[in-house]
Amino acid sequence: MGKVYVDISMSLDGYAAGPDADMENPLGVGGMQLHEWIFGLESWREPHGLDGGDSTVDNEVVREGQAAQGAVVMGRRMYSGGSGPWEQDPNADGWWGEEPPFRVPVFVLTHHARERKPMPGDLDFTFVTDGLEAALEHARVAAGEKDVLVAGGADVVQQALAAGLVDEVQVHIAPVLLGSGVRLFDNLGADVKVEPDRVIESPNVTHVRYRVVKR
Amino acid sequence: MGKVYVDISMSLDGYAAGPDADMENPLGVGGMQLHEWIFGLESWREPHGLDGGDSTVDNEVVREGQAAQGAVVMGRRMYSGGSGPWEQDPNADGWWGEEPPFRVPVFVLTHHARERKPMPGDLDFTFVTDGLEAALEHARVAAGEKDVLVAGGADVVQQALAAGLVDEVQVHIAPVLLGSGVRLFDNLGADVKVEPDRVIESPNVTHVRYRVVKR
Repeated sequence: MGKVYVDISMSLDGYAAGPDADMENPLGVGGMQLHEWIFGLESWREPHGLDGGDSTVDNEVVREGQAAQGAVVMGRRMYSGGSGPWEQDPNADGWWGEEPPFRVPVFVLTHHARERKPMPGDLDFTFVTDGLEAALEHARVAAGEKDVLVAGGADVVQQALAAGLVDEVQVHIAPVLLGSGVRLFDNLGADVKVEPDRVIESPNVTHVRYRVVKR
Repeated sequence: MGKVYVDISMSLDGYAAGPDADMENPLGVGGMQLHEWIFGLESWREPHGLDGGDSTVDNEVVREGQAAQGAVVMGRRMYSGGSGPWEQDPNADGWWGEEPPFRVPVFVLTHHARERKPMPGDLDFTFVTDGLEAALEHARVAAGEKDVLVAGGADVVQQALAAGLVDEVQVHIAPVLLGSGVRLFDNLGADVKVEPDRVIESPNVTHVRYRVVKR
């Protein structure tokens, strides 16, 4: 069985998204800056149907995740791009359109039951209404020997950490101070313990990885 | 003229101190964990009058700061160890006792005028009542060609960053989630811009350094 891991970009001041997320700014105002390090990479461009791109150390970090990843769990706001559209239409599609940057089964946490949405390739979206642990169980089965990514948002990451369900956390620290938004590490007590595992430096971002110490 | 820099430990979840600081826990509950990486180092032990210690890469990072440092600016709570003692006795001494870990002039921001406190060696404490810019001016003069450290606490760091007075920020990211406390980067707008400068990894802490982009 693979591991359950978090892999997420964060500003130096600890935000995983900017404030006031909506369809225009699905990552919140200024939130796109957290991900600027990734857009030029070959590993990001290729699943988005784009040629070329950089093959830097950042690219290797992304490729490593893609290779290990067997399934993904995410919250409904991450799927739908802010809460607005979903609240208007609980059957709204994800904001990634027809070519989402995933190649594996994705399990979306929601309170609204809806049918599995098949997509091209190995990707499909399954909507899970019985909570995070159930979603992780489904994802573990789908992933087989591979790893399960808890993709976000911050609330889902916090829930998974607080419940002791995460084995590893990789944070991509972007060189930006957002000043406000959604804190990645928030609403957590003092009992999540981590151990340093690896640091990879690049001119654009710092990748820090930790093992979560099991209680 | 040297630079003005911030050099401070922070938890992975962004805290520069734990909650409920008092004389017993001058760094807040759990806050000592942020500094665990430093206590075993030769560079920390030596100014505290202790022999031995580790000469790791962390030690080099600390030594580098000590060599560059010509003066220090800090807030009154950092000097007195929590606000309690100071409020009871505004002439209370710093919580470091007779051997503070500084070898250079220290300028303490306060609203309460009091006399300069000479100490052994080049260290002394000067109490500045006319604000951060004035304290930095005094410190620049005292530092000569060397650098001025804005040592903390978080409120003083934020004030200095927001006013555009900082050239460089080095954060020592400790592998700990405190869950609550005093956020290092807080009360800041979105207009502090940073550029990655250097990352140094060790098994105990990650040292990330940024240049502050001047507006």
